[in-house]
Amino acid sequence: MTTSKLLFTPGPLTTSSTVKSAMLCDAGSRDHDFLGVVSDIRRRLLAIGGAAVGGDYECVPIQGSGTFAIESVISSAIPREGRLLVLVNGAYGRRIAQMARVHAIEVETLETPENRKILPEAVAERLVTARGVTHVAVIHCETTTGMLNPIEEIGAVVARAGAAYIVDAMSSFGAIPVSLEAAHADFLISSANKCIEGVPGFAFVLARRAPLLAARGRARTLSLDLYAQWAGLETDGQFRFTPPTHVLLAFHQALQELEEEGGVLGRAARYRRNHETLAKGMAEMGFEPYLAAADQSYIITAYRYPADPEFRFEEFYTRLSELGLVIYPGKLSQEPCFRIGTIGRLDVTDVRRLLEAIGAVVSPTKTAI
Amino acid sequence: MTTSKLLFTPGPLTTSSTVKSAMLCDAGSRDHDFLGVVSDIRRRLLAIGGAAVGGDYECVPIQGSGTFAIESVISSAIPREGRLLVLVNGAYGRRIAQMARVHAIEVETLETPENRKILPEAVAERLVTARGVTHVAVIHCETTTGMLNPIEEIGAVVARAGAAYIVDAMSSFGAIPVSLEAAHADFLISSANKCIEGVPGFAFVLARRAPLLAARGRARTLSLDLYAQWAGLETDGQFRFTPPTHVLLAFHQALQELEEEGGVLGRAARYRRNHETLAKGMAEMGFEPYLAAADQSYIITAYRYPADPEFRFEEFYTRLSELGLVIYPGKLSQEPCFRIGTIGRLDVTDVRRLLEAIGAVVSPTKTAI
Repeated sequence: MTTSKLLFTPGPLTTSSTVKSAMLCDAGSRDHDFLGVVSDIRRRLLAIGGAAVGGDYECVPIQGSGTFAIESVISSAIPREGRLLVLVNGAYGRRIAQMARVHAIEVETLETPENRKILPEAVAERLVTARGVTHVAVIHCETTTGMLNPIEEIGAVVARAGAAYIVDAMSSFGAIPVSLEAAHADFLISSANKCIEGVPGFAFVLARRAPLLAARGRARTLSLDLYAQWAGLETDGQFRFTPPTHVLLAFHQALQELEEEGGVLGRAARYRRNHETLAKGMAEMGFEPYLAAADQSYIITAYRYPADPEFRFEEFYTRLSELGLVIYPGKLSQEPCFRIGTIGRLDVTDVRRLLEAIGAVVSPTKTAI
Repeated sequence: MTTSKLLFTPGPLTTSSTVKSAMLCDAGSRDHDFLGVVSDIRRRLLAIGGAAVGGDYECVPIQGSGTFAIESVISSAIPREGRLLVLVNGAYGRRIAQMARVHAIEVETLETPENRKILPEAVAERLVTARGVTHVAVIHCETTTGMLNPIEEIGAVVARAGAAYIVDAMSSFGAIPVSLEAAHADFLISSANKCIEGVPGFAFVLARRAPLLAARGRARTLSLDLYAQWAGLETDGQFRFTPPTHVLLAFHQALQELEEEGGVLGRAARYRRNHETLAKGMAEMGFEPYLAAADQSYIITAYRYPADPEFRFEEFYTRLSELGLVIYPGKLSQEPCFRIGTIGRLDVTDVRRLLEAIGAVVSPTKTAI
């Protein structure tokens, strides 16, 4: 495995060679220089959310995948007597509800069809009829479909109801502008290997300080104790448990490259071009997107299987992979779809290469639906 | 942070340039080639423990640090009505007991002074007087001191008592020969960034199949559910949640380099030479090891602070670090010590370089005790 394929997936993503090269260094996890890197990472992440060191928000990196960081929030922030409302229109919302159940947290869901946005009015209505909801969780970009949920409008509703607001911004943070304050977010979670274009190995939580401090002593685990993780970093700048040092060095480089690209807006522009190129090319070949254009993010796009009864996703996937192009299977509960991500260190040239390959692999006349 | 220092620590460790270079590749986490790497890693880890695919043991990698994998075992394997006995002679034993308490698992400890080995007879005695102990946990090499505990003899005692046996082999696996079967181990845990000389980002559990299957539905978390993690890998070869792909590629390379070095015995020989060179040189400068020679592993060595009242560890550490040599602070509950690891991609030339630097930084006449 020495040559990278191009990854048109929701992550891990294609990263720049300079991000990968930053890993060619063994850093001591307690060494002064490395702690400086960790500190700068935390500062830069806050800035992406429109916050600053010493302001209302704190940054807490958590080892593991994005799911680990979400579980860190769910299992640390919600008190025993709390009640969680999860807004669900895809697999990742369902996963948060499942996680709460594992921790015996009272949980209810507000289900919206996978091809529809979550409506702030529906959330407001539920918060009136539901009893004792203390926390509301939502997915910003539902990677199941590529759907973008209106987190700011929902946040205003949640804030008015006096509940705490948990935003899973896994696939959006760094590529879709977000203000923690404007979204009324108490906890926002994302991961190293998403739109900041680092490599996988840790995730992070941007937490409003008051509810973070309130999480002290509430955690249901040791490793995923959000407050203790933060308190450890604040005490001596060190992680409580061994951090993925190389992955953090790569992430630091990735953050600098995000800045060089013009920050979130610059990156958003490239991803949008990628998505538009993909959408146009796929439409020309007759592929039908699962979502309406108005609901579709530029992060990842779900396409229905072509009508051709001879279409076999595994074969389609394998032939593209053999050409060095990796797409992604579907995750919808009902409809057979596949997904194509347009994030990571990819540009329109790469997307055109993928489109050509798809055209060659699936005969366009057969894919017409 | 482009140049690596030499890491005389318990990990993250100095790794070979070829291990680091294996990370210069973006792999799709569901891609066929990558799944082949994961499968080969699991096979090779079993082999190091003297087990084989299809035999009595299974290998379950877990994202995060070593502590995450230990918590995965503790929070997944022990039933609600179980009772854990932790054998403690250092900080890592205490951490397991703390972890059990967080999960409201009934736990008791058998405390042995930090400078003494855990005695199998004492364990046997406790297992007679204690009521209802279902699981016993021990640390193989207590990184707090460098102490090596007799896991095989203790395992025989635990097996006779009919309890399950959990071995934290974090700092020993890959460098100290261990047979899972001979040690009567039901669960053995180690980490990517220890003696196999990979980089940090995941850890792994070698589990006897029967108690692993019995863990189904017992887990107290989602992310650290040991059974579900294994079942997911068995179903389609994929991790349930995003794995640290680059770290896994590095680890695969590290496993091949372990084999090239002559496996565990070859690596043990190099580490032993490192340790002997260190021990001799430090003794010549008047430094006093914390442990008796008979109890001391070749993994890491704790040294008492020199008697010189002007000795300041922070200054000592910083001056060595400026020379590109990273040592480690102590973690003893009572005595002020520092620690020097002799593991990772280091040889006697590196150890001699450290000894020279220590001699230059701390005047030998002043360090004589």
